[in-house]
Amino acid sequence: MKKALVVFSGGQDSTTCLFWAKRNFDAVEAISYDYGQKHRLELEIAEAIAKETEVPFHVFKLDLLNQISSNALTNPDVEVEQDKPADRPPNTLVEGRNMTFLTYAAIYAKSKDIHHLVTGVGQADYSGYPDCRDEFIKSLNQTLNLSMDYPYEIHTPLMWKNKEEIWQLADGLGVFDLVRNETLTCYNGIIGDGCGKCPACKLRKNGLESYLLKKG
Amino acid sequence: MKKALVVFSGGQDSTTCLFWAKRNFDAVEAISYDYGQKHRLELEIAEAIAKETEVPFHVFKLDLLNQISSNALTNPDVEVEQDKPADRPPNTLVEGRNMTFLTYAAIYAKSKDIHHLVTGVGQADYSGYPDCRDEFIKSLNQTLNLSMDYPYEIHTPLMWKNKEEIWQLADGLGVFDLVRNETLTCYNGIIGDGCGKCPACKLRKNGLESYLLKKG
Repeated sequence: MKKALVVFSGGQDSTTCLFWAKRNFDAVEAISYDYGQKHRLELEIAEAIAKETEVPFHVFKLDLLNQISSNALTNPDVEVEQDKPADRPPNTLVEGRNMTFLTYAAIYAKSKDIHHLVTGVGQADYSGYPDCRDEFIKSLNQTLNLSMDYPYEIHTPLMWKNKEEIWQLADGLGVFDLVRNETLTCYNGIIGDGCGKCPACKLRKNGLESYLLKKG
Repeated sequence: MKKALVVFSGGQDSTTCLFWAKRNFDAVEAISYDYGQKHRLELEIAEAIAKETEVPFHVFKLDLLNQISSNALTNPDVEVEQDKPADRPPNTLVEGRNMTFLTYAAIYAKSKDIHHLVTGVGQADYSGYPDCRDEFIKSLNQTLNLSMDYPYEIHTPLMWKNKEEIWQLADGLGVFDLVRNETLTCYNGIIGDGCGKCPACKLRKNGLESYLLKKG
């Protein structure tokens, strides 16, 4: 039996990945991290979607990321930038986030005899997060295998898709409405179509509009 | 100025590394992890040695490792095996430990403008811990660089040394007595020469005896 563990945040991308995993594996579990993100709603939404789709779901508490470095997603004194300078990543970058998330996912997966890890990272809409790149994921996969002497396979179904193509994938999986109405992508914590103004909402909205246009 | 961060536990190996780092870098900091280890004394010893040698020292709390998997170092219900079966690692293995330790060390190091990480892992006395191997450390180094788009260099001064050679290194650095008397290696929590019976003490004692014999 092929089992997969999805790193799941209740956003558009990881929710689409959750349904992709349900289509491609015999059994699926999902995990979220409580790392001090301002929008605690994220965890409630993730839990609600997991429940609705009957996927076993766990939240792991990760205090340390927030202690070690400061960023706009966890520090109440830092505001999300609307336009980021070209010479550095946006201030929503949480250093080492995907590395930490996938490492703990791998440790947990091994204890449950799961070899397949699924994450929604992608570099098509790459906004300056180094840990969303394919090169990083491939290197991490090798390092995890060596670290625990266990053959993991990290799946990144969205790696080369832009937002338009991610909407198309959700539609193909029969979950367009669920993803549109129930997920949280917005940095300002507004569910569904969001505030429409933060960088995450802009990306999502542009993709949605061009997908709907193309679909006709 | 070349700065280094040492992953430090107050044991023979990482204490020797701390002094190796002080010899080879202009500035040194040390970090320990509180991951629910049974011997809390470890953290006190690490702090005392850091203070004595005037090295800035931080303890990071890592609850999650202990939540995710069970092992003899953190679970009070699991006893350390005296002789481990040949077909699997000892039950003192904490899955993903070095990967987690070095990842957080790297995140912290970047925030302090430090590029050099020092760890006491080694594969000469390899006891079945996959995350002590050189191959793993090299892969992790590459993954960390990609993860944070930052050039780290992981130093493993003990990688190819057996315990006898580690005693020799401490002696060459002028800290033989300090390492012998003030560090904690013993799984049963006895400082200095330890209980003499657990796997960690046996390794340490055999190395010490052959070093003293050779030195004459």
